[in-house]
Amino acid sequence: MESTSPEPSTAAAAAAAAVAETGCSVQIRRLEATDHEKGFVALLSQLSACPDLTASEFAACFADLAALGDDHVILVAEDPTAPESRILATGCLFVERKFLRGGGKVGHVEDVVVDAAARGRGLGLRVVRRLVEIAKEAGCYKVILDCTPELRAYYAKCGFVEKGVQMAIYF
Amino acid sequence: MESTSPEPSTAAAAAAAAVAETGCSVQIRRLEATDHEKGFVALLSQLSACPDLTASEFAACFADLAALGDDHVILVAEDPTAPESRILATGCLFVERKFLRGGGKVGHVEDVVVDAAARGRGLGLRVVRRLVEIAKEAGCYKVILDCTPELRAYYAKCGFVEKGVQMAIYF
Repeated sequence: MESTSPEPSTAAAAAAAAVAETGCSVQIRRLEATDHEKGFVALLSQLSACPDLTASEFAACFADLAALGDDHVILVAEDPTAPESRILATGCLFVERKFLRGGGKVGHVEDVVVDAAARGRGLGLRVVRRLVEIAKEAGCYKVILDCTPELRAYYAKCGFVEKGVQMAIYF
Repeated sequence: MESTSPEPSTAAAAAAAAVAETGCSVQIRRLEATDHEKGFVALLSQLSACPDLTASEFAACFADLAALGDDHVILVAEDPTAPESRILATGCLFVERKFLRGGGKVGHVEDVVVDAAARGRGLGLRVVRRLVEIAKEAGCYKVILDCTPELRAYYAKCGFVEKGVQMAIYF
């Protein structure tokens, strides 16, 4: 179960596997209810306006999103071997259902951010690549995201190509 | 109730109101289960790959999306005074929930298309403007969409401004 805390022995095995695979002890896993204590909201505030949430506000928001099941996946990067473990990066995928393409599904990647002190280590790319895999496994016919023009090359490293323009109205 | 068929007298009153407001008898309303018979899927196929759906496939897809409640709204344009009523335009809004902005909501406008024979009458703009209103009423802090560069001016008529680039991976 990715959405619950693994047993210590499992966590140790996962950490060892992560090191073997990537040469890095940072693991990518699903957001957990206890990540409020690990700076998840503060990390999001490096991306956009994100006022702090109380523990109960965080729990309520977490429950709302968890109720969407595999249609809403938030991944986080954490080094469980660090003395004080913090969330180093995050990214989200939500799955939109359509009438198009015979009742097809589209994955939307949102809210990707890497802690300023942890950039340059490829953590954001690992998060995004995993989100793309999840979208593919879920049967999405495409996965899309919006970004600033400066980030085109970054997302190209994960296989994204420019497709159109994003338009917005802020209320 | 926008999601159920109005009584005949109500429909007539709505048609009269639409004519009074817009000088046009076309009404904008929520998609109904019976719209499969009015060419809804064929209309979508003018936008993107959209194989025909059997009545039961349509009903299943309709039920899946209806279960999302006000987090997924499909609007259609129809002229109930036409001899053979068809869906002339459509557009969709889905509401994404976030941790950002204190548990904020973002409206995504998707799958806007106007029947080739009904273009130039402002039906698409009426659909999109209503979707934007719904997003605002739902408490979204912004509403976004992706389009081709050629459609920037079209969506600017509804208040949208260019915000970024859309990136995609097709599986």
